[in-house]
Amino acid sequence: MMLSSHLKHRFLSELFTSYFLKISTRATSTSTATATKYQQPRNESQSQVNTGILLLNMGGPEKTDDVFDFLNRLFSDKDIIPLPAQKTLGPLIARRRTPSIQEQYAKIGGGSPIKMWTEKQGEGMVKILDQISPSTAPHKYYIGFRYVKPLTEMALDEIEKDHPRQVIAFTQYPQYSCSTTGSSLNAIARYYTAKKKKSQSDKDSQILNDLPWSVIDRWQTHPGFIQAFVENIQKELNKFPADVRNDVVILFSAHSLPMSVVNRGDPYPAEVAATVQAVMESLNFSNPYRLVWQSKVGPSAWLGCATDDAIKGLAKNNRRHILLVPIAFTSDHIETLHELDIEYSQHLATSAGVEMIRRCESLNDSPHFIKAMADIVHKHLQSQRRHTTQLPLRCPGCVNASCEQMRKFFCSSS
Amino acid sequence: MMLSSHLKHRFLSELFTSYFLKISTRATSTSTATATKYQQPRNESQSQVNTGILLLNMGGPEKTDDVFDFLNRLFSDKDIIPLPAQKTLGPLIARRRTPSIQEQYAKIGGGSPIKMWTEKQGEGMVKILDQISPSTAPHKYYIGFRYVKPLTEMALDEIEKDHPRQVIAFTQYPQYSCSTTGSSLNAIARYYTAKKKKSQSDKDSQILNDLPWSVIDRWQTHPGFIQAFVENIQKELNKFPADVRNDVVILFSAHSLPMSVVNRGDPYPAEVAATVQAVMESLNFSNPYRLVWQSKVGPSAWLGCATDDAIKGLAKNNRRHILLVPIAFTSDHIETLHELDIEYSQHLATSAGVEMIRRCESLNDSPHFIKAMADIVHKHLQSQRRHTTQLPLRCPGCVNASCEQMRKFFCSSS
Repeated sequence: MMLSSHLKHRFLSELFTSYFLKISTRATSTSTATATKYQQPRNESQSQVNTGILLLNMGGPEKTDDVFDFLNRLFSDKDIIPLPAQKTLGPLIARRRTPSIQEQYAKIGGGSPIKMWTEKQGEGMVKILDQISPSTAPHKYYIGFRYVKPLTEMALDEIEKDHPRQVIAFTQYPQYSCSTTGSSLNAIARYYTAKKKKSQSDKDSQILNDLPWSVIDRWQTHPGFIQAFVENIQKELNKFPADVRNDVVILFSAHSLPMSVVNRGDPYPAEVAATVQAVMESLNFSNPYRLVWQSKVGPSAWLGCATDDAIKGLAKNNRRHILLVPIAFTSDHIETLHELDIEYSQHLATSAGVEMIRRCESLNDSPHFIKAMADIVHKHLQSQRRHTTQLPLRCPGCVNASCEQMRKFFCSSS
Repeated sequence: MMLSSHLKHRFLSELFTSYFLKISTRATSTSTATATKYQQPRNESQSQVNTGILLLNMGGPEKTDDVFDFLNRLFSDKDIIPLPAQKTLGPLIARRRTPSIQEQYAKIGGGSPIKMWTEKQGEGMVKILDQISPSTAPHKYYIGFRYVKPLTEMALDEIEKDHPRQVIAFTQYPQYSCSTTGSSLNAIARYYTAKKKKSQSDKDSQILNDLPWSVIDRWQTHPGFIQAFVENIQKELNKFPADVRNDVVILFSAHSLPMSVVNRGDPYPAEVAATVQAVMESLNFSNPYRLVWQSKVGPSAWLGCATDDAIKGLAKNNRRHILLVPIAFTSDHIETLHELDIEYSQHLATSAGVEMIRRCESLNDSPHFIKAMADIVHKHLQSQRRHTTQLPLRCPGCVNASCEQMRKFFCSSS
C-alpha cells in the first residue's frame, strides 16, 4: 500500500512539476538572461550554488532498525527534553521505548516516509524557484533532520563545501516552537560556534564569517499553505454523505506540548490557532471545528483538549461524523499514519461509536503546497530580511542558554 | 481622575457620534423613506422597537457596596465555577473575598466603569444602526450583565415588554468561552425554559414562542474591531522613545482559564490567538510579541504563560520595554485598571527592573470600535443567520446539561 501510494505520488509530482515549469517559463521568459546578468565570477573550487535552502525538520526512522538511533538522539536533545543525567538517562529511555515504536513503524510500511516527501518537496520547490527567481538561481535544497540522517550537521558540512552566496534555514514546521524549529536552529548555531572555536587557520574562520545565513522561522498563515490545506479538507469533506456533510466536526489536530513549555511562553499554541483560523476563514466557516492536541507522552501535564478525548467526547454528545486534520505537519509521520489513522480512526472510533471518521491527506507532494514553499522562499529573498520580528524574542520564561546563543548567531547584526 | 476621564470620554463620545451621524446620513440619504417603507403595522400595546440588541457581559460592581452581591452571583454560577454544595460554598467564598476586592475597587475610583462604557457603546451603536440599516430600525440596545444590575433576567423582562420584531443576543466578549458568553447564553435559555414551564395562559406561551432570537456569539477577527486595537496600540507605541520603539515587546494579555476548562475543549484560547494574529498582521508585525494570560485565582492549574511571570522573565532576559494590550476585554475592568495598571505596571515592573511599561487603552468609546459593533450587527442582520456554525458544537468534554439546553433554545430550528 505504501509502495503504490509512493508510485502514485511520484507520478503526480512529475505531472505537477512539469505544469509549474510551463507556467513559470511563460511568466519569466527572460529568466536565463537575468540569471546570467546577476551572476558574479566565482572560484573554481566552489560549486555553482547561488542560494542554498536548508529544509529543517525532525525526521523519522526510514526503517525499523533506525528506531533506536532516532529515539536516542531525541531523548538526548536538551532543547526538547531536558533530563537529569541526560547522557545516561536518554539512551536508557530510548532503549526501553524502541520495541513498541518499532512495532508502530512496522504497521505503517516499515518506516517513516518523511525523507521521501521532503525530497519531493525540495526538488519541486527548487525547480519553481529557479524559474521565478532567476537572480538568486541556481537554488539547491539540503535536508537537515534533527534525529536521523541526513542530520543537520551533515547538511551543514555539505553547505560548507558548496559555499553558496546565501543560505536560508527554512523550517518545515509552519508554526514555531522552541522544541521543534528552536531546537534545529540551536543545532546550527552550536555547529558553527564549536567549529569556530576549533578552527585554527584564518581561511577557515573567513569561510565561517562569510556564510550569509538567514532564517524562515515561521509561516503559519501563508496563503498558499492555507489554500493547500483547504483543498485537501474540501476533498475529504466531499467523501461524507451529503446529508451530514455540513455537520461534520473538523478536528484540527496538532502535536501537543508539555504545560511546562506552554507556560514559559512558547509561541506554538497561538500560531497553530492562527493557522486554524485562516483555514476556517478560507472555508467560509462551513463546519463546526475545534483545535485539539495529540501525542502526549509521559505522566506530566500537557496541553489539551487531547485528540483522543475529543473523539470520545464528541461521540458521547452525538457528534458522530469527524474529520481529522493534521494541521502542524507538512508530510506524513507516525503521528498521522499510526496515531490518527490506526489508533484513533480504527480502534478508538469504533469503540466510541463514531459513525464516520476520515483523516485529511497530509500536504506531502500537494502542488499547492510545493508552490507555497517556493513562494515563501521567494518572498523571503525579496524582503532581504534575515528573520521575522519574532525570532529575536526568547520565551519570557526561557532559561536555556542555547536559545540565547542561537539568537546571537542568527539575529545579532540585523 | 476617574471623573475627569469620564468627562473627557463623554465629550469625545458625543463628538464622534455626531461625526458618524454625518457620515451615515450622507451614505444613506433615503434612510427615512426606506424605514417607513419597511415598517409594518404594529399593535398599539407594543413599543416601536423593531430590533432589540441585548449586549451581554459579566458586569462589575458600580460601587464598593455592590462587591459582595457581584461575587456572590459569580461564585453561585455553576456554568463558570462549579462547586460542591454551591449554595453554601458560593456565598462563603464571596464573603471571604469581598474586603480585598473592595479595596481594589476603591483604588480605581470606587467601582467598575463597565456600565458607563457599555451604555456609550450601545447608544453609539444604535444611532449608527438606525442610519445604516433603516429596514431593521428602530434599534434598541439592552444591557444584560451576568453578575450585577442590569441583570440579564431584568433585560429579558424589558425585552418581553417591548416585544421587538427580532432580538439579537450580542456577546461583548469577542472570543467565545463557555465561562463567559456560554454562561450568559445559558442564562437566557434558562429564563425562557423556566418561564415556559410556569406559563399557564396560551397568550403568554404564544409570546414566548414568537420571540425571534438570534445570536452574535463571537467576532474574534472582525476587521473594524482589529483596526480599533491597532490604532490604540500604535498610539501607545508612539509614546516610547524612537530608538527603542521597534524593540518594545507587545504582551497581549487575556483573562486566563483553568486547565480543566481548556482541556475540555473550550474554544477561547484559540480564538484569542486568532485576534492576536489579526492585530499583528495589521501592524505588519512591527514588534515582537507574545500572548500571555492574567488573573488566575485559586490553587489549580491555569493556562499560562502568566502575564506577571512574562513581565518578570522578559526583564530578566533584558527586554525592558513592554506594552500591555488587554486583548479580550472591550472596556476597562478591574483587570485592566487594577491588575495591569497598578499591580503589574507599577509594583511588579519596578521590582523586576522594567525600564518602561505602558498599557494600551481599552476600546471603551473608541469610535472605530463603536462603528465595528454596528457593522457586526448589520452584517449579522444581512446574513439572516441565527448564529455562527460554531455555536451548536458543545465542547468535546462538555458534561453540563445547561450547555445542551442552550443549544436547543438558540440552534434547534436553524
